[in-house]
Amino acid sequence: MIARATPLGIVGVGRMGANMARRLKECGFTLAAIHDTRPDAARALAQELGAQASPTLAGVTERARIILTVVSDDRAMRAIFAPRGDSLLRGARGRSFINCATITPAVHLEIERLARRAGARAIEACMASSIPQARQGTLALMCGGERATFRALLPLLKALSPAPRWIGSAGRAAQVKALVNMVMNINTAGLAEGLALGEALGLDLDLLREVFSQTGANSRVLETDGADMQHRAHECYFSAAHAAKDSSIALVLGRQKGLRLPLAAATARQYARMKRVGLGELDKSGIAELTFRGRGGRGLKRSRD
Amino acid sequence: MIARATPLGIVGVGRMGANMARRLKECGFTLAAIHDTRPDAARALAQELGAQASPTLAGVTERARIILTVVSDDRAMRAIFAPRGDSLLRGARGRSFINCATITPAVHLEIERLARRAGARAIEACMASSIPQARQGTLALMCGGERATFRALLPLLKALSPAPRWIGSAGRAAQVKALVNMVMNINTAGLAEGLALGEALGLDLDLLREVFSQTGANSRVLETDGADMQHRAHECYFSAAHAAKDSSIALVLGRQKGLRLPLAAATARQYARMKRVGLGELDKSGIAELTFRGRGGRGLKRSRD
Repeated sequence: MIARATPLGIVGVGRMGANMARRLKECGFTLAAIHDTRPDAARALAQELGAQASPTLAGVTERARIILTVVSDDRAMRAIFAPRGDSLLRGARGRSFINCATITPAVHLEIERLARRAGARAIEACMASSIPQARQGTLALMCGGERATFRALLPLLKALSPAPRWIGSAGRAAQVKALVNMVMNINTAGLAEGLALGEALGLDLDLLREVFSQTGANSRVLETDGADMQHRAHECYFSAAHAAKDSSIALVLGRQKGLRLPLAAATARQYARMKRVGLGELDKSGIAELTFRGRGGRGLKRSRD
Repeated sequence: MIARATPLGIVGVGRMGANMARRLKECGFTLAAIHDTRPDAARALAQELGAQASPTLAGVTERARIILTVVSDDRAMRAIFAPRGDSLLRGARGRSFINCATITPAVHLEIERLARRAGARAIEACMASSIPQARQGTLALMCGGERATFRALLPLLKALSPAPRWIGSAGRAAQVKALVNMVMNINTAGLAEGLALGEALGLDLDLLREVFSQTGANSRVLETDGADMQHRAHECYFSAAHAAKDSSIALVLGRQKGLRLPLAAATARQYARMKRVGLGELDKSGIAELTFRGRGGRGLKRSRD
């Protein structure tokens, strides 16, 4: 079992990672080392939480027994677990890694193998919620990897999620996560089209959203993003750039299986277009900037500064 | 106000119309005339409900004061309200028409004008629910047209819906309805892709649907169609052919407004493809037959007979 005094490391303190660190601190866990590719961000959070920032990855492994990684993509995951140079794998014997990034499922398999070779253990803990849930410890966590490792890490996982769930072997949780985000992104892109057409027709969008909520058009993203699309409130919880990445992870899985996924493909193209026109750092609701007449991100400057 | 003895006519007794007729009868209304392009269907329902089948449209107008029309598309609407020949408009002075079909909004405007010229009144009452709701009088009804006419018809509308809603002038409710179905169809087509990819990856689809329901992938169609997609239960409540029609109504509205709606377009293509490969009479959930490996409607024969 994990004692609260077990030293923890956190790698990647963006919007999600920083709030998970705050939550763990609040629950009485011991934050021993914080690392980020932006040293300023690591230092600021370390100071806030009375922890130490580590300029190197190997330094995190040295100071911590359990290391939570919350990075952005496949490339970043492979970099922190590099077989050579500064890496979390240096001196990793006996360490446990909890990897939270939404990445290609096969990369979790790679990392699990590398960790095992280094005498360490790794599980994936995919997050299906957003920033407020990270802060409050109410994330939906889907975990993959060895079940025994999952069980050993449960006390810590339970500080982050009311009901961490073991999905299956390494890569399985990441597959489920890719599917969740693929479907969520499709529903989001579709909602942005429906509201944009309603606006173009001169309909009252409050009424339209209410009717949607009472009919077959209802969805979780209608609740979370509908009003934001209408009012152009695209402060970032889950960025369009992340949506683009996740949709493309699912598309690649589909291609590998020989499936035709036209909705997923159209959605990935829309989110890729957001990045191309400089709107990738808006929240995913910002896709409405592509569909509403005369928007295209114009007049949004203040909220993006 | 409408007395229960006011003679009613029903035109179009398909899956929805027949059940609305049963409901009205049960509520004590007087069914005076029933018409359908399939005379057998009209006779069978007339016999069941102790009403009279009318072989002509003019015969319905002659016998009834309020006429409910529940036909399938623009063409059928224009045919029953034809300016010449056998038509509901013959001798229509003083009649009220309640038009329930999901059709192009502009056609409701045409019909309202034609009705007014014939000394009659017409409102649209767009239904955002399915067969069980039609039978039980729990439809979501969105109405458009003159508000006074809507008010006068409320006692009858309330037999069909707990809360009939006036949306605006003629065509407005049909616009909202087109948007509801456009977004619903997108969510349905997207869900069919997510579950198909889950299946191809060897994931447990019960678990996947449960995770979807707890995350940003949740939607009304996940509740209504998710299990049916998994288990290939495509008994028809709302046909793929209707979904194709409704998505294309919305797409045309979008084109008229100069909007780019790639998700709506991809969805319309998928439902059009269902019709092309002979699956148009499956329920909309049957779109999973296009996305799951090795399905394509094979092995579904019994449920379609």
